[in-house]
Amino acid sequence: MSTELNILFENSRKASRKLNKLSDARRNEILLRVADAAVENIDKIIAANALDLANMPKSDPKYDRLMLTAERIKAIADDIRSVASLESPLGRELNKIVRPNGLIIRKVSVPFGVIGIIYEARPNVSFDVFSLCFKTANACILKGGSDAINSNRTIVEVIHSVLEAQGIDSSVVSLLPPTHEATAEMLNAVGKVDLIIPRGGKRLIEFVRDNSRVPVIETGAGICHTYIHSSADIAKGAAIINNAKTRRVSVCNALDCTLVDASRIADLPVLVAPLAESKVIIYADNRAYNALEGKYPYLEHATEENWGLEYMDYKMSLKIVDNIDDALEHIERYSSKHSECIVAEDAQACDRFSLEVDAACVYSNAPTAFTDGGQFGFGAEIGISTQKLHARGPMALPEITTYKYIIAGNGQIRAK
Amino acid sequence: MSTELNILFENSRKASRKLNKLSDARRNEILLRVADAAVENIDKIIAANALDLANMPKSDPKYDRLMLTAERIKAIADDIRSVASLESPLGRELNKIVRPNGLIIRKVSVPFGVIGIIYEARPNVSFDVFSLCFKTANACILKGGSDAINSNRTIVEVIHSVLEAQGIDSSVVSLLPPTHEATAEMLNAVGKVDLIIPRGGKRLIEFVRDNSRVPVIETGAGICHTYIHSSADIAKGAAIINNAKTRRVSVCNALDCTLVDASRIADLPVLVAPLAESKVIIYADNRAYNALEGKYPYLEHATEENWGLEYMDYKMSLKIVDNIDDALEHIERYSSKHSECIVAEDAQACDRFSLEVDAACVYSNAPTAFTDGGQFGFGAEIGISTQKLHARGPMALPEITTYKYIIAGNGQIRAK
Repeated sequence: MSTELNILFENSRKASRKLNKLSDARRNEILLRVADAAVENIDKIIAANALDLANMPKSDPKYDRLMLTAERIKAIADDIRSVASLESPLGRELNKIVRPNGLIIRKVSVPFGVIGIIYEARPNVSFDVFSLCFKTANACILKGGSDAINSNRTIVEVIHSVLEAQGIDSSVVSLLPPTHEATAEMLNAVGKVDLIIPRGGKRLIEFVRDNSRVPVIETGAGICHTYIHSSADIAKGAAIINNAKTRRVSVCNALDCTLVDASRIADLPVLVAPLAESKVIIYADNRAYNALEGKYPYLEHATEENWGLEYMDYKMSLKIVDNIDDALEHIERYSSKHSECIVAEDAQACDRFSLEVDAACVYSNAPTAFTDGGQFGFGAEIGISTQKLHARGPMALPEITTYKYIIAGNGQIRAK
Repeated sequence: MSTELNILFENSRKASRKLNKLSDARRNEILLRVADAAVENIDKIIAANALDLANMPKSDPKYDRLMLTAERIKAIADDIRSVASLESPLGRELNKIVRPNGLIIRKVSVPFGVIGIIYEARPNVSFDVFSLCFKTANACILKGGSDAINSNRTIVEVIHSVLEAQGIDSSVVSLLPPTHEATAEMLNAVGKVDLIIPRGGKRLIEFVRDNSRVPVIETGAGICHTYIHSSADIAKGAAIINNAKTRRVSVCNALDCTLVDASRIADLPVLVAPLAESKVIIYADNRAYNALEGKYPYLEHATEENWGLEYMDYKMSLKIVDNIDDALEHIERYSSKHSECIVAEDAQACDRFSLEVDAACVYSNAPTAFTDGGQFGFGAEIGISTQKLHARGPMALPEITTYKYIIAGNGQIRAK
């Protein structure tokens, strides 16, 4: 390991230990100062961001995500203030056991220590992640995309200037050099970095999962289904499909594949009608194609590969299933276990679907578009986990804590 | 991936889905039958075990762990009955949120699905792991040591015969071939296996962590400290050190290094006196060596490498620290974050130690020997986690579940 990075990792750990000793009130106070500093430094941040934007063609789909404006920075500052106002997830007694021998065992929520975040050209993530980690007394190591390096450097400078003025070890937030070598070293920093969260596209997430020796929480990819049951209210179904598909196509909770019960095949034209307004291309299996031919303008034949696709676009797969068993089998086979939905008036069908579908979020009669920390009322979100270990679905402040057992004795001894 | 193993993984998943639909009462009933079958098949299991024992020299330290006796099998059956009697951790409502728009969001505990366990020559683990996984509706894939292959095959046969008689898909428990290739395939079975738990020595655990693409819970290695504070009651301290060191030296919660406050150096001979009975070799730093010379019979000079050792033997490091800060620094540097202890009458010192030490279990005035699912009152234990993700410390039934969000709506739509 390079000496320089080793020092960075060690400084992060030292800073995390000091951060854990501050009071929650003090951490919130500092977050409010960082929010103020973000607004005070709008011109400086925008100037740095302009350098990054100058290196990216405007036609690049990442261009808009890379761009910071005064309005966006003010919104970021508001988000930081909102994080400061949330209840601290630290120091909560999750369990208390008093043993017959008098030992008192308390399970208490504590910070992870050092969290590494690997993300792409979205400089707002730098402020976001800092505020969530600082709130939870975790030091963070940011590895942003090289496209955003000037923006990220300036953002971290702004945060550091506040921390230094407040007498806080500025190593609570560090920016990793934007090189593959630095990423590789962080992925191997067992015992130095406690957790790595990749935020971005499928390739980034798979790369991190496949190469990290440090524990990882996978976020992201959502191949989401909506099943229209035989008992479905078709008006609800049409609105749910349209909302889940077209609200924002580039998000992981967007609908990818609609399954329609064969008994409702006659309702297909009504069910998909609202999608025509957004020119959604439907990839339909033979039965659905025949039912919609001439009745829906943007129709294509589905092939096997359509079932496993996360479109991130105005496109949707459509399949007729014979019954709920068929729907469950299809979802089991193709779902990425993110968000799945049934539209049904039959409560038993909803219960069965909720029990049997293996996904982070299972909906009855509401669109998968609701899978979001804000929509769940969490007040903040660091990502949406698609794995089962530690956290599942929207991850907020409690999900970036761990726990320890604190055991108080009075000289008890364990028998042989 | 080999076709054969792919089929095994797919069958495990199918079996896990069916298992999740059984009632808890039915699962418990089947566990009791398995306990009965273990006892009924004692002769058969012992005969298979004899084949394994014949291939291992009696001098091998693993020999005793490999050996099954009638008494041990009866104890295993009792453990299975005890697991059957525990409360199910499934279907618990961990949180319920009613949103202003009327969405009802419930966070509910559910099985992982398929859990892979990689372990060494301890055939009792096969019964243990099966019962814990079956209880929690997880299918398990067992990868035992090749040393125990005959024992494991017979144990799995016994379980399968009960499952088949009860009409349960026997793929809820599978034995992986005892080859490195099979292990490698399981470590790469992303999306097929949900979680892998290695149980065994440091090398096994590191191998699994470094090579798995499937999420892993690390268990095991414990470099455990006990700090004698300036306010310590020396009688308590002597008993705690002796118990933590000598109760069982081969377990991960055994004491490895004692730190003694410089103000209590005169108490050293009394503090370590009970260790002489077990002939514990003390590796002491210079100050401790000088204080104990001629007063403790098994004394050696410590070198730098002694501080990072997990002994698994009648050996202990001993160091004088100037104060609690010094002790905390030493522990931060050398601890494996398993179990740490302070002996102090000063409550503030205990609080500070409990807050600042980063370990799964932090003790005041009780030996680290208590880090154990049974001692915590959990009734069962699948391992002791030394990582921070998902589970920390003793892992029982709730720790081998995950959760999902079940969201009930009535046609709500998310705004743009």
